[in-house]
Amino acid sequence: MSFASDNWSGASPAVLAAVSTAFSGDDAPAYGTDPQTAEAKAAISDVFERDVAVFFLGSGTAANGLAIAHLTRPWGAVFCHSASHVNASECGGPEFFSGAKLIGIEGEAGKITPDSLASALGGLRIGDPHSVQPGTLSLTNLTEAGTAYSVGEVSALSDLARSYGMAVHMDGARFANAVARLKCTPAELTWKAGVDALSFGATKNGAIAAEAVVFFDKAKAAEFEFRRMRGGHLLSKHRFVSVQYTAWLKDGHWLALAGHANAMADRLAGGLRARGIQLAWPVEGNEVFPILPHDLEARLKAQGYQFHRWSGPSPAVPNASVCRLVASFKTRAGDVDAFLAALDRAAQTIAAE
Amino acid sequence: MSFASDNWSGASPAVLAAVSTAFSGDDAPAYGTDPQTAEAKAAISDVFERDVAVFFLGSGTAANGLAIAHLTRPWGAVFCHSASHVNASECGGPEFFSGAKLIGIEGEAGKITPDSLASALGGLRIGDPHSVQPGTLSLTNLTEAGTAYSVGEVSALSDLARSYGMAVHMDGARFANAVARLKCTPAELTWKAGVDALSFGATKNGAIAAEAVVFFDKAKAAEFEFRRMRGGHLLSKHRFVSVQYTAWLKDGHWLALAGHANAMADRLAGGLRARGIQLAWPVEGNEVFPILPHDLEARLKAQGYQFHRWSGPSPAVPNASVCRLVASFKTRAGDVDAFLAALDRAAQTIAAE
Amino acid sequence: MSFASDNWSGASPAVLAAVSTAFSGDDAPAYGTDPQTAEAKAAISDVFERDVAVFFLGSGTAANGLAIAHLTRPWGAVFCHSASHVNASECGGPEFFSGAKLIGIEGEAGKITPDSLASALGGLRIGDPHSVQPGTLSLTNLTEAGTAYSVGEVSALSDLARSYGMAVHMDGARFANAVARLKCTPAELTWKAGVDALSFGATKNGAIAAEAVVFFDKAKAAEFEFRRMRGGHLLSKHRFVSVQYTAWLKDGHWLALAGHANAMADRLAGGLRARGIQLAWPVEGNEVFPILPHDLEARLKAQGYQFHRWSGPSPAVPNASVCRLVASFKTRAGDVDAFLAALDRAAQTIAAE
Amino acid sequence: MSFASDNWSGASPAVLAAVSTAFSGDDAPAYGTDPQTAEAKAAISDVFERDVAVFFLGSGTAANGLAIAHLTRPWGAVFCHSASHVNASECGGPEFFSGAKLIGIEGEAGKITPDSLASALGGLRIGDPHSVQPGTLSLTNLTEAGTAYSVGEVSALSDLARSYGMAVHMDGARFANAVARLKCTPAELTWKAGVDALSFGATKNGAIAAEAVVFFDKAKAAEFEFRRMRGGHLLSKHRFVSVQYTAWLKDGHWLALAGHANAMADRLAGGLRARGIQLAWPVEGNEVFPILPHDLEARLKAQGYQFHRWSGPSPAVPNASVCRLVASFKTRAGDVDAFLAALDRAAQTIAAE
Repeated sequence: MSFASDNWSGASPAVLAAVSTAFSGDDAPAYGTDPQTAEAKAAISDVFERDVAVFFLGSGTAANGLAIAHLTRPWGAVFCHSASHVNASECGGPEFFSGAKLIGIEGEAGKITPDSLASALGGLRIGDPHSVQPGTLSLTNLTEAGTAYSVGEVSALSDLARSYGMAVHMDGARFANAVARLKCTPAELTWKAGVDALSFGATKNGAIAAEAVVFFDKAKAAEFEFRRMRGGHLLSKHRFVSVQYTAWLKDGHWLALAGHANAMADRLAGGLRARGIQLAWPVEGNEVFPILPHDLEARLKAQGYQFHRWSGPSPAVPNASVCRLVASFKTRAGDVDAFLAALDRAAQTIAAE
Repeated sequence: MSFASDNWSGASPAVLAAVSTAFSGDDAPAYGTDPQTAEAKAAISDVFERDVAVFFLGSGTAANGLAIAHLTRPWGAVFCHSASHVNASECGGPEFFSGAKLIGIEGEAGKITPDSLASALGGLRIGDPHSVQPGTLSLTNLTEAGTAYSVGEVSALSDLARSYGMAVHMDGARFANAVARLKCTPAELTWKAGVDALSFGATKNGAIAAEAVVFFDKAKAAEFEFRRMRGGHLLSKHRFVSVQYTAWLKDGHWLALAGHANAMADRLAGGLRARGIQLAWPVEGNEVFPILPHDLEARLKAQGYQFHRWSGPSPAVPNASVCRLVASFKTRAGDVDAFLAALDRAAQTIAAE
Repeated sequence: MSFASDNWSGASPAVLAAVSTAFSGDDAPAYGTDPQTAEAKAAISDVFERDVAVFFLGSGTAANGLAIAHLTRPWGAVFCHSASHVNASECGGPEFFSGAKLIGIEGEAGKITPDSLASALGGLRIGDPHSVQPGTLSLTNLTEAGTAYSVGEVSALSDLARSYGMAVHMDGARFANAVARLKCTPAELTWKAGVDALSFGATKNGAIAAEAVVFFDKAKAAEFEFRRMRGGHLLSKHRFVSVQYTAWLKDGHWLALAGHANAMADRLAGGLRARGIQLAWPVEGNEVFPILPHDLEARLKAQGYQFHRWSGPSPAVPNASVCRLVASFKTRAGDVDAFLAALDRAAQTIAAE
Repeated sequence: MSFASDNWSGASPAVLAAVSTAFSGDDAPAYGTDPQTAEAKAAISDVFERDVAVFFLGSGTAANGLAIAHLTRPWGAVFCHSASHVNASECGGPEFFSGAKLIGIEGEAGKITPDSLASALGGLRIGDPHSVQPGTLSLTNLTEAGTAYSVGEVSALSDLARSYGMAVHMDGARFANAVARLKCTPAELTWKAGVDALSFGATKNGAIAAEAVVFFDKAKAAEFEFRRMRGGHLLSKHRFVSVQYTAWLKDGHWLALAGHANAMADRLAGGLRARGIQLAWPVEGNEVFPILPHDLEARLKAQGYQFHRWSGPSPAVPNASVCRLVASFKTRAGDVDAFLAALDRAAQTIAAE
């Protein structure tokens, strides 16, 4: 059983069925001019309670890089958390697309705060041609630490960013998990809180490969189709992505999938805490970051459980490291319970040695 | 009925079934470390009779841009046909990925010849820092004109390119159609003829979204995985592309699909010729380029037939233009015959006016 | 004696004296915040009868690349003459700075015409994301063929470009020679004729290394200082360029230098024509392009005369090629006459053989 | 009197005379094919006791960006001090030229240590396509804090870098000051200590605008001339830079100039210390960083002394900030003494208030 990543799972049956239907049926125009794509765009506008500009593509890294590039001139600094996907896990993709400089900001539990952003902005010399200039704030929600920026936190950061003339991007690879947790509307967590563009990811939450860049002000999306094309991100049989979105969004399916994954993470966190295992950060989505003793980690992996070690040796607990356990839409309560039982067995064996 | 493009069609049932199976089954590691991806890579090595380096992705424009970038330093010229997809239909994608300058070469029936390549090379000043330098030759096979470079033609061009120290790339968005027509082996048409890297496309010939960059000399592929990642082209649920390839290649399915599409194009071409309609270029794959009088074109489109006008007014035939009719794996003989019958009706109506 | 290029010559004594004065005197603020730079900018505004935005730098290739990049989004096509410096002699510099695609247009005597521009624009599919879009028209004046676009020609081309929403750039490496020849004002040949940005070169006409990008609408120059800096083109001891401009522009010195060079080219052209030697293109500046028999060319070079062969074998004259002879501000009438005498001697020797 | 920067000063008379001679004399071939450029290159090879590859240009930012780009593939990380010029003061120039990601490392007195470099390298996941890979170590010597990396420090850092397959670049905008201080040879501080490429700056130390990229292994310089050209950094009247170098290097003039500037900094530092003013970092070149009380700073500036505040409020001294005072080749002992006297007057006035 794997808790390695939500992108190890397959697809929600509803999403898969939509793809099967679309690709066994009639021909459709290519490159996004098909009726299914129009339908999916309308569905996204509905979800965000606004007539938004939507661009479908197949990869979250592409969504981030292209969106950031469209919001940022090449001498604009992109502020992001130092551990964020855009900064640490895209092999320089945002730099490639935008030419801009990413400035990583340290912060507890994967979060930037207004203070830390203000301090980072203070490192620029505004108007001095030697210095990169305020460009874009990129927030990841869920963060890399599995925490969720609240509507209030997003608003406070966006307000600060806007006071410097900056744009605001949100990497929402796990946006569904954040919305499901926060009990807010998608609109509240994005454009109503000052976000200009969202990388709205479905892949990690039940789709095969489905990502969308959503611009809340259509004027800011002008000519984005050319940027997407020249990056090789305009899929020809475009309905492949579109029909996934329509099925995924229909009747709140996306939030049901995310809510389930979140509940499984809670179950796991509860079980871990009950066993005296400390969590590095609050569980605010579908990810749990226990500080696992190295011998326990090794025994669990030896039993076939898959998950990533997330950090070097923990300063808080001797001979232990932060590990990451990710629940997905497919994780069952029995999987969690089996994992906890395996952990008990491993702990007993260690104690007996 | 559409003859607009082979990328309007859905997917081969075998390919679609493979995706359904993969995405309703067990979890698998992400980013190409899964067993299905290994299997698909092995299948491609088999097809090319060589242990090749394979990189899967979702778009042909990406395959072209990334491959060209990996073969070409930024001051290297990329020679290609002026009407080729890389030059005319990727919105500057190859330039974006490589930084290099594309030099379009005119040529009959979509083809570059050794003479025209030599002449274009003569426009560079080798060793002079003011001039871009010989970089990469990019051949499109099938060409944009639906013709196929023969093994001998590829060899002759590659030899010339290599004598200038250039690399050779082949855009094989319709490589299957070329191989099916030429009755050569995939190896003969590529590395045995001097090709370094192939954009090996499946999407247009029965896949949903499946493209691969194949490097025949693995050393030339070194670190390509980083280039793909930073371009946003490393799909997370990677087996989506892999299983399409395995199913598509299995037991020659890909060539059966392409052979069928080619046969439908031949049937169409034969019917057109029998009706006195001139073809702009030989039919050597699944595309037919008739010179259609504008009134005939209009009446066919009014009957619901979809296809693209490909050029301005024909110099050869008054009040006519080259149009493009594309057959796909899904085209049936009855579709072709119905089109020809519609054409007869339209011609009679026009004659009666 | 060299007729190889006007950039082989030294500097006008007035320009050199200004540099000597500036660099033996007091300290001055760096990076263009010094009073001499303000003075030079004011001088350029005077010359163009308008409050323009001026950016000094050291290289004409940089001026072109940065200006084009500032005017053109990455998916915008840059139309230029196929033989222009930006297209053929900057090693892909404009592509490097802008990311855009250059589209070379063939044309007699180094010139683009409204017809040829319209035809090139017809090769784009406007609004189609597969195609690059209208971006910038870049005119070279003097052209690479030594001809001058008249005010009317510039206006007609700019009008067409603007009707497509394009910007207009002028590469004025030999702008002084064009103005001196055309007897128009600098304003008439640029912003009054629709030019948005000028690469205003002094180097070839008596400066050491002095180039300026001039934006006629200051709004179009917004943030250009950052683009210049990140390209490494903000010189620290900035007054080096500024004082050259002030001296060069003072009391029409620049036009006197250019007028002299032009007159020397006329003298040379007259002498060549009188000897029955055909010129490839009209002499409209300081460059002369005679079609020289190869044996004559060889004998002149053997006598120490330096100049470039400009083309392959001439179709007009057997065993001959177009050569380029460039007069500079330093060329003396005696140099021209000596060259013509050398030519006579060489012709006699050849005749005697 | 200005202590703002060494790039506010004019030029050494010897350097200026060389330019005057070159530009009032005979024509010379352009673009670096002239004899003066060959002579200057030979002089640099002499200085470094090795047959090196030399490329002249006009700006240090260009030298850094182009050198780093030539050493680093786009997915290579460039490690540098967080306060270094390449990271903080080039408006993203190195990113523009290389496409690579700069990773700033904090460190006392402007220096990276083997420990801090190892720690930064530990932040990469080697071989994982999500992570940028070890690319280039860029050391600034003198550092931005006016300190000098010793030969041993450079060696230790280079050894670590090389053990990761990284290249080593040195930004030597004030290399002369470092060599003059360390009493080592230029070879010892560069290639003998593992440096691959040096940005060898003359501008800050008595030249007008003269920078050079020096590759110690000529093979690593292959095709650099094309990179320089497409960046717009191949100056046409190339001898402008060359003759400055020849004059600057002749008979150790460069080290005499630097030694003088260093001595003036020492004099200044001694005077400040004698007055109880703390220095933020050791004086190891021509820069002094006193922690000046804000009222003292204000009074000095009111008396016309120019210098930069370098940091926010000092944590060490209340109501004070680190300021930067730079001595140049032109600074006279009397200037220093006058400054110290002004400081005494200001202190007395403050005390009297």
